[in-house]
Amino acid sequence: MHEFELIKNYFQKLSKKSLSALNLNDDVFFDKKNKLVVSVDTYIEGNHFLNFRKPDLVMKKILRSSISDLICKGVKPKYYFISGSGNKKSFSKLNLTKITKSLNQEQNKYKIFLSGGDTVFSNKLSFTITSIGFANDIIYRNKAKINDDIYVSGNLGDSYLGLLVLKNKIKLNNLLNTYFTNQYFMPNIQLKLADQIKRFANTSIDISDGLFADLDKMINVQMLSYKIFLKDIPISKSLKKVLNFKKLSKIKYISNGDDYQILFTASKNKRRIISKIASNYRIKLTKIGSTFSNTKKSSIVDNKNVKITIKNKGYLHKF
Amino acid sequence: MHEFELIKNYFQKLSKKSLSALNLNDDVFFDKKNKLVVSVDTYIEGNHFLNFRKPDLVMKKILRSSISDLICKGVKPKYYFISGSGNKKSFSKLNLTKITKSLNQEQNKYKIFLSGGDTVFSNKLSFTITSIGFANDIIYRNKAKINDDIYVSGNLGDSYLGLLVLKNKIKLNNLLNTYFTNQYFMPNIQLKLADQIKRFANTSIDISDGLFADLDKMINVQMLSYKIFLKDIPISKSLKKVLNFKKLSKIKYISNGDDYQILFTASKNKRRIISKIASNYRIKLTKIGSTFSNTKKSSIVDNKNVKITIKNKGYLHKF
Repeated sequence: MHEFELIKNYFQKLSKKSLSALNLNDDVFFDKKNKLVVSVDTYIEGNHFLNFRKPDLVMKKILRSSISDLICKGVKPKYYFISGSGNKKSFSKLNLTKITKSLNQEQNKYKIFLSGGDTVFSNKLSFTITSIGFANDIIYRNKAKINDDIYVSGNLGDSYLGLLVLKNKIKLNNLLNTYFTNQYFMPNIQLKLADQIKRFANTSIDISDGLFADLDKMINVQMLSYKIFLKDIPISKSLKKVLNFKKLSKIKYISNGDDYQILFTASKNKRRIISKIASNYRIKLTKIGSTFSNTKKSSIVDNKNVKITIKNKGYLHKF
Repeated sequence: MHEFELIKNYFQKLSKKSLSALNLNDDVFFDKKNKLVVSVDTYIEGNHFLNFRKPDLVMKKILRSSISDLICKGVKPKYYFISGSGNKKSFSKLNLTKITKSLNQEQNKYKIFLSGGDTVFSNKLSFTITSIGFANDIIYRNKAKINDDIYVSGNLGDSYLGLLVLKNKIKLNNLLNTYFTNQYFMPNIQLKLADQIKRFANTSIDISDGLFADLDKMINVQMLSYKIFLKDIPISKSLKKVLNFKKLSKIKYISNGDDYQILFTASKNKRRIISKIASNYRIKLTKIGSTFSNTKKSSIVDNKNVKITIKNKGYLHKF
């Protein structure tokens, strides 16, 4: 059973609709009256991160994943709580020193700080991170309009290639190995957009499961279809090089998630301001398609305008 | 390594002292500017709860444990988030139905509601609960004064006896079995005190680890000692009966925690108001001792004013 189905089916009725338009349908909780925005996520070894050989990098990855949930909604994260479950080896003095140093770097980079948490003994290593921010309003899911442009921030796919490197499923030179694994552990989340995105986006989500999986989640209760141009989906020069050299398919690499870039839609009359903000703040924002009424079928088209079928829309946490 | 030592030693420097007088030294986080109070706790099968044979009762136990952290600080819980990690068996449809029903009962009883969370696959069952409330001020730890009265709410020890029943370590009749296991799963936390306790308490904590362990935690950085009268520690009629009949020692039963009663100190001039509130709101509030300057040694005395030595001050989550 998929995570969101499980939550939706059983727990939806426990949430109080009047307080929040989001509730359990969105990745964050928004209490408009108290201006409070909360994200809670659990990360498990072997599922959300490969292993704990590099505790410092794992902490960066999961913390960025957590605050990315707020940033994509136009909310600056303010503080976070970590609950860790693990054994003596995971929480050795050496690892705790590495973890503390690493979290301290993240705190300086993103202007957040640790506010509490819990550490308990378990043979299975996992972390739950609660991230908190304050905002008068946020960008909701399922608020796209017909004929919106669809945009994505940054580049996609680097993180998945980094995972394949870590799994020894692909061999590259040392320089590329380091580049891609760094992208896996330290995705370039877009803190600067948190303050700006409300100026143009109608709806938004961060890409954790994969571009198409998250696109579906972003507009899943709307009567809308989309058209995405594969050639327009932004990838890094390094990824382009590897795809060409190894003759790998672009669509697979941009569909596997862990990118933590922001996917959003905006009305066409926002093109100028988007371009200006992208330039002023040096953020890559790329138009990759449009929304349509659902009289059309959703499609992904290749360079020759031919429709592509994809098997795996992205990663879903399975039960 | 003990939980709070671990947090204190490594993570203290990551918290921002200026924002909160509490930080990682307390069980809750308080952001005075935003009036926000947060508690985050992780509960693991075999450690914080015995097993998951009664998922409905386990959920009640851990949710009450979580909101008890706010209530003892004088804060009404408003909503909560649950992150569950478990396997298919733990989250079967039958169990999810039981869990939902049980949480719904708790929500009605304590006027709180579920605001989100996460469910992920793991072979080890655990839950992290984030509870949130709002308050202009809270009751801090380590604010006891010299010659304060020390009080406890409700009765202690029933929960521990319930645990022994569940572990088949003690045999009682069915009626008593049910009474004590219910106390283990459904501690009588004192929601009504949340609004009143600020009127008289100088410092407070909830009893999760055990009366003496939590008493030490409540005043651990203060230059204070205490004297506790064993005979005055409140226990239920049922526990009194079992202790007498089985010739068991009272001190063991009131030292093992999971009571979720409120331990607090108050100036002697608050005796009248405490007695009035106890009577008006029908809450049992019992004076069990006093604080002194630390020129005296802390002591627990029996009926004949003879000092008692205790081996195990209470349960500490160990690494």
